[in-house]
Amino acid sequence: MYHIDLNCDMGESFGAYRLGEDERILDYVTSVNIACGYHAGDPANMRITVQQAVAKGVAIGAHPGLPDLIGFGRRNMAVTAQEAYDMVVYQIGALHAFCLAEGTSLRHVKPHGALYNMAARDEALATAIAKAVYDVNPQLVLFALSGSWLVKAGISVGLRTASEVFADRTYQADGSLTPRTQPNAMISDDRAAVDQVVRMVKEGVVVSQQGDVVNIQADTVCIHGDGPHALQFAATIRRVLADNEISVQPM
Amino acid sequence: MYHIDLNCDMGESFGAYRLGEDERILDYVTSVNIACGYHAGDPANMRITVQQAVAKGVAIGAHPGLPDLIGFGRRNMAVTAQEAYDMVVYQIGALHAFCLAEGTSLRHVKPHGALYNMAARDEALATAIAKAVYDVNPQLVLFALSGSWLVKAGISVGLRTASEVFADRTYQADGSLTPRTQPNAMISDDRAAVDQVVRMVKEGVVVSQQGDVVNIQADTVCIHGDGPHALQFAATIRRVLADNEISVQPM
Amino acid sequence: MYHIDLNCDMGESFGAYRLGEDERILDYVTSVNIACGYHAGDPANMRITVQQAVAKGVAIGAHPGLPDLIGFGRRNMAVTAQEAYDMVVYQIGALHAFCLAEGTSLRHVKPHGALYNMAARDEALATAIAKAVYDVNPQLVLFALSGSWLVKAGISVGLRTASEVFADRTYQADGSLTPRTQPNAMISDDRAAVDQVVRMVKEGVVVSQQGDVVNIQADTVCIHGDGPHALQFAATIRRVLADNEISVQPM
Amino acid sequence: MYHIDLNCDMGESFGAYRLGEDERILDYVTSVNIACGYHAGDPANMRITVQQAVAKGVAIGAHPGLPDLIGFGRRNMAVTAQEAYDMVVYQIGALHAFCLAEGTSLRHVKPHGALYNMAARDEALATAIAKAVYDVNPQLVLFALSGSWLVKAGISVGLRTASEVFADRTYQADGSLTPRTQPNAMISDDRAAVDQVVRMVKEGVVVSQQGDVVNIQADTVCIHGDGPHALQFAATIRRVLADNEISVQPM
Repeated sequence: MYHIDLNCDMGESFGAYRLGEDERILDYVTSVNIACGYHAGDPANMRITVQQAVAKGVAIGAHPGLPDLIGFGRRNMAVTAQEAYDMVVYQIGALHAFCLAEGTSLRHVKPHGALYNMAARDEALATAIAKAVYDVNPQLVLFALSGSWLVKAGISVGLRTASEVFADRTYQADGSLTPRTQPNAMISDDRAAVDQVVRMVKEGVVVSQQGDVVNIQADTVCIHGDGPHALQFAATIRRVLADNEISVQPM
Repeated sequence: MYHIDLNCDMGESFGAYRLGEDERILDYVTSVNIACGYHAGDPANMRITVQQAVAKGVAIGAHPGLPDLIGFGRRNMAVTAQEAYDMVVYQIGALHAFCLAEGTSLRHVKPHGALYNMAARDEALATAIAKAVYDVNPQLVLFALSGSWLVKAGISVGLRTASEVFADRTYQADGSLTPRTQPNAMISDDRAAVDQVVRMVKEGVVVSQQGDVVNIQADTVCIHGDGPHALQFAATIRRVLADNEISVQPM
Repeated sequence: MYHIDLNCDMGESFGAYRLGEDERILDYVTSVNIACGYHAGDPANMRITVQQAVAKGVAIGAHPGLPDLIGFGRRNMAVTAQEAYDMVVYQIGALHAFCLAEGTSLRHVKPHGALYNMAARDEALATAIAKAVYDVNPQLVLFALSGSWLVKAGISVGLRTASEVFADRTYQADGSLTPRTQPNAMISDDRAAVDQVVRMVKEGVVVSQQGDVVNIQADTVCIHGDGPHALQFAATIRRVLADNEISVQPM
Repeated sequence: MYHIDLNCDMGESFGAYRLGEDERILDYVTSVNIACGYHAGDPANMRITVQQAVAKGVAIGAHPGLPDLIGFGRRNMAVTAQEAYDMVVYQIGALHAFCLAEGTSLRHVKPHGALYNMAARDEALATAIAKAVYDVNPQLVLFALSGSWLVKAGISVGLRTASEVFADRTYQADGSLTPRTQPNAMISDDRAAVDQVVRMVKEGVVVSQQGDVVNIQADTVCIHGDGPHALQFAATIRRVLADNEISVQPM
């Protein structure tokens, strides 16, 4: 029997500002990554999102980012490995406390945006982040880009890892994502996107943009939580996965 | 045998900015309250301060404040009880994670500045803060102004509390501190300040500014960590307490 | 011939977060108050909003607020008069620079949220804010609650002022707004709201919630820029004002 | 007759945190670059520093930085050219308002830290920053690293520029600064540092670390404002420049 986790970034509202269809997307996913106040989110939204996830029985993870609210954590910053370690410990802890207050457990950590992307390519940064997760709680699962330094670092420090794949992005022959700046980086057809996931799960491969068949580990798929199209895509992937006898479950 | 805890606010440096003689004052105190990034402090300073406290065997507490870096958390803000609850959960969690990462325990929580003062006088705010502490970990000790609503709220929700007194402040007939805006609010003579503490501990009373003998609970005394005078006062109070056979120990 | 200014708060988006129907509401108002980064807004949104206002020929004002992004500047803070002065100078300057860069002029200043409300009731705070505006540019018009300390302070320091009234709020016998916490604070019927404005402009009076006829100065009316209802109300008030031969024009 | 400007970064205190010997170093310099609240500084310190500079008759400049208080603006961030433009306009405007309020003029702009260094090497970023300065006020002088893209961009958009050199840094054969990560990047001997400046001014050359004689434009020298050594070095450079008949004056 095949299985996969569906995860979604959540709790990215901030003060008076609303972002994402959190409550409705919760019906489709098995894991949520909750923003921790650095790139988005605030204490009230962290509490509310934890409460919603508990109500739906969805696995809760921390989604730590760079300290860049204006840039939504999407702009690379030259942080040191030690600085990355410290900011990840801080943010995991903040979310962990809301889990404790709601009588639930923190299950995983997935870095956000630029921190996620930098850690995918930078061994020292990846190791610092993996170590931060392990030092706070060695039972936490580290979510990271499939094939990245961050997956390797997680394994190396002794963590369970979840290799993340993307339904709507194309891949290169080396297993990396096609940069968004290039044409054909995105897969706009929902059915093609879902079929890519099905093949990743069942066969452990993805067909690169150049036509190569590339090995890939697919433990969890990232589902978007905002935009008019998000809920429809979530419903589609659930249906097609079910048709293919792929069970959707948390790590 | 009499005993008292000596506590000090710490980890209030921020980025390139230094504040306080943290490492040197650690030799004199038994509890430290570490800033959590809202009114002061940052992840790096939180980690370093926890490491220093572990090295000295001093009890570690969280020191949550209002989200007001420019005002150092000293300006009253009209936060709701729910907002106070959320910001306290968040900050306790952040510091707790550094304790976990360093293999030590978080022992207490003491609100900072305006949050401390507002909670002393406002039952709803006090209850929200006490509940936040309890919900994260019912074993934590709540440090609060002796005789305040926050002590009452802590007891009411089921927490152990530490009633805090001040060596260098005068008291009113109702047991409250003389406001800093009034003359004679401060006790500038070190010996008089320490003698006030000795009497609080041994006899459970303080002489008010008006000459009344007022009952007061003294579990912990706040020692300042910055200023040229801080270390000298810390040494004096340790010596005089020892002379009076008052043991200095954490809660 | 009667006339009135219609103003709207704008540029309150922040980073990835959108707020308000700025571009569409610009067709209905004659003055805009642009957020300056303290309670909302950021440099990119300030530039874009200035450009949009220039394109529509609408008078541009600064909308300085308290340093409280999470609370959207709506929570009272115990800032000193000097702190209020400094934060208003800072924020006016920031917006002024975008006006210079776009070849246009800054015309007015309207404090935001809690800063606006505190200055209405506090003479020292009102005087500090009025002085800040005057010191940056004595030609600026100060927008403030009709009958408030801030209007008086503006006149006192030598500024032109615009007395602001509200269409959808009821008034008390002393000319103050009915607090939002009380029933009947809001006027939900659009026509009743607009008729209140018409009478304020033509007769210089408002009927209080208790039935008294109260003198009131009405130079500008605040129109909301967000919510599903905002554009419809804006169209209604423009039409009814035109029917009553009240010209809509900036100060 | 030779001449040079001496500039110093100032107003980098923040809230309760003190940094720099601003008042004392003002006796030695002819230009100051005042932090604008993004990497350091706050409205109160901006006002106070402008007042001090006015009292000493020193030329005032804005010192805009990246939005990174924890990192003091020293960490590179992947900001777009448009984002750099917007944040520079914002910060210049904020300081300009304090100059207006104190009845003085803003004379120059010098980017801070990582923004300064990135703009030195990146033509698009340099052009955006130069254009921001020009668009706010074409009379402002742009201070930038001698030989950098930022000097070229300033000239290209029509600004007057001041080429900045460093007394205590060694240079490479291409006129760039030896990176701080390399040995011999710093000149620790005060006299050697000052002699390097004298030769830059009188002969227009610097001897590179490899021994080459390299052409260099020296309009202004950066003097540090903090550290125990700052005032002593400032006195030394003033004395040696006077001995060499090099007049110290603002741009």
